[in-house]
Amino acid sequence: MQITFVQVLDFIGTLAFAVSGIRLSSAKHFDLFGAYIVGLVTAIGGGTMRDLMLGVPIFWMQDAFYLICTALALLWVILFSKHLIHQNNTWFTFDTIGLAMFTVTGIEKTLTAPTPYPFWAAIIMGTITGAAGGVFRDVFMNQVPLIFRGEIYALACILGGMAYFLCLALGTGSVTAGLVCGAFVITTRILAVRYHLHLPVLRGEDSTD
Amino acid sequence: MQITFVQVLDFIGTLAFAVSGIRLSSAKHFDLFGAYIVGLVTAIGGGTMRDLMLGVPIFWMQDAFYLICTALALLWVILFSKHLIHQNNTWFTFDTIGLAMFTVTGIEKTLTAPTPYPFWAAIIMGTITGAAGGVFRDVFMNQVPLIFRGEIYALACILGGMAYFLCLALGTGSVTAGLVCGAFVITTRILAVRYHLHLPVLRGEDSTD
Amino acid sequence: MQITFVQVLDFIGTLAFAVSGIRLSSAKHFDLFGAYIVGLVTAIGGGTMRDLMLGVPIFWMQDAFYLICTALALLWVILFSKHLIHQNNTWFTFDTIGLAMFTVTGIEKTLTAPTPYPFWAAIIMGTITGAAGGVFRDVFMNQVPLIFRGEIYALACILGGMAYFLCLALGTGSVTAGLVCGAFVITTRILAVRYHLHLPVLRGEDSTD
Repeated sequence: MQITFVQVLDFIGTLAFAVSGIRLSSAKHFDLFGAYIVGLVTAIGGGTMRDLMLGVPIFWMQDAFYLICTALALLWVILFSKHLIHQNNTWFTFDTIGLAMFTVTGIEKTLTAPTPYPFWAAIIMGTITGAAGGVFRDVFMNQVPLIFRGEIYALACILGGMAYFLCLALGTGSVTAGLVCGAFVITTRILAVRYHLHLPVLRGEDSTD
Repeated sequence: MQITFVQVLDFIGTLAFAVSGIRLSSAKHFDLFGAYIVGLVTAIGGGTMRDLMLGVPIFWMQDAFYLICTALALLWVILFSKHLIHQNNTWFTFDTIGLAMFTVTGIEKTLTAPTPYPFWAAIIMGTITGAAGGVFRDVFMNQVPLIFRGEIYALACILGGMAYFLCLALGTGSVTAGLVCGAFVITTRILAVRYHLHLPVLRGEDSTD
Repeated sequence: MQITFVQVLDFIGTLAFAVSGIRLSSAKHFDLFGAYIVGLVTAIGGGTMRDLMLGVPIFWMQDAFYLICTALALLWVILFSKHLIHQNNTWFTFDTIGLAMFTVTGIEKTLTAPTPYPFWAAIIMGTITGAAGGVFRDVFMNQVPLIFRGEIYALACILGGMAYFLCLALGTGSVTAGLVCGAFVITTRILAVRYHLHLPVLRGEDSTD
């Protein structure tokens, strides 16, 4: 068995996404089963949505890797519950690596799907792979999805996706395009958090609060 | 390029559905990205659900039309935020046209799907096309879906769908059936709003409030 | 027409799941249409999710049986609204039979799907068939899904699924495996309710209440 660089990134990202779901579950006093499911849905929900929309087999149903990763994430949260807050920077880093990784995976899976899709559909699929799991997590938490009113998150995927196709248009191979895309996602995310960048908030006529 | 009558109706409906999602987002202080996504999901969520259930390619993934419509809807809400309330009648009209249009589209797409389906499944698919986007919108808003406790909305789709198959049974072509279906949806909707028609509310034994 | 034992169980389960959705809807003052939809989604949501993920035709779209069952459930709740609370034991029994039945159905449908899947994917599909409808119901109710913080419910499906594959490994046929699986689901569920068994609750560092 040979572990590739991509598998390591996939592991880091899955772990970080699952931890984010499990931590939020624990704040809502979910039981162990609920926490595991929310962690799993956060980690694999985006890719599942993508595969359903592309009409291809669901990626995690042939490979127990993602179930095991989520179990490890649950174990970690149980064992280190008191120290997790001191690991926030680490988990932010892992989450950002995961976001970049999942965006690239989503784009490349769309480009190799049986049906050909336009480039913007691939960018959307990359964004769904990266960001939809967190939306499902928040719906299960019974709260408004964070990415609709909070930090710049899905936008990082979109910018990264544009960079991917800009690279392809400039004649690079898909490896370079993937690396540039990932770098864009990570940089956007870090800049957004460091400088507290937000998108403008829409204030409508029918505001109720 | 030739613009058909159907495309004009599709544009009006998509715009109206997106505007409804964006206006609700603005009442909840979503950022621009969140408002765009909620507008998009309101407009294309029903058709996406339908296509997933029929096992056919997702309609909007080959045609940027729906993404552009939603961008125009967002622009409109930003530019005319203070006047939207005076446009309520117009948007109600557009929304009703969209509901009729999407119902007919859903029925006809089911009838031309690779798998043959019974007529009642086509009516359900028409109703999902028209009404499910609003359910997703409300779930993202973290509120109970309006169509479960409010106005007669999805019922208009069901009545229109019945009229469609009554026409076919009477020997009309699909164009006539589609027009009659649309007229039924629009009439039901207008009558329900004008005369404040509601379905009976279920009051159960385990009522908590 | 010959009614099989499996069809009787399917009827009992569908009725019980629909009744659970409709009763919760009535507590939230949904209208008749909303109550019907929530009942339907509770009854068929899990199987729909399973069929989407397996990439096979949606089971209820060719057979009006499930729509009719849900209509009967609605009628029952309307007619006997004041007596439902005295029927709680009966409905608990029916719900438990349904849970067992749906778990077995989900496992066997996965094993006969065009794509071969590993055994643990079949267990997950059995669990989704049994438990996901209730999750959708709770999302529509705008509440945190019960199975994430409440009783042992989905875990019964998982234990039953493990028993199914243990039987197969021991060389039994699928009928025996199905019966043992169902017995495990029912026994787990009854023991959990009688002895108030719960999974440990996760209490995290970022608890907010």
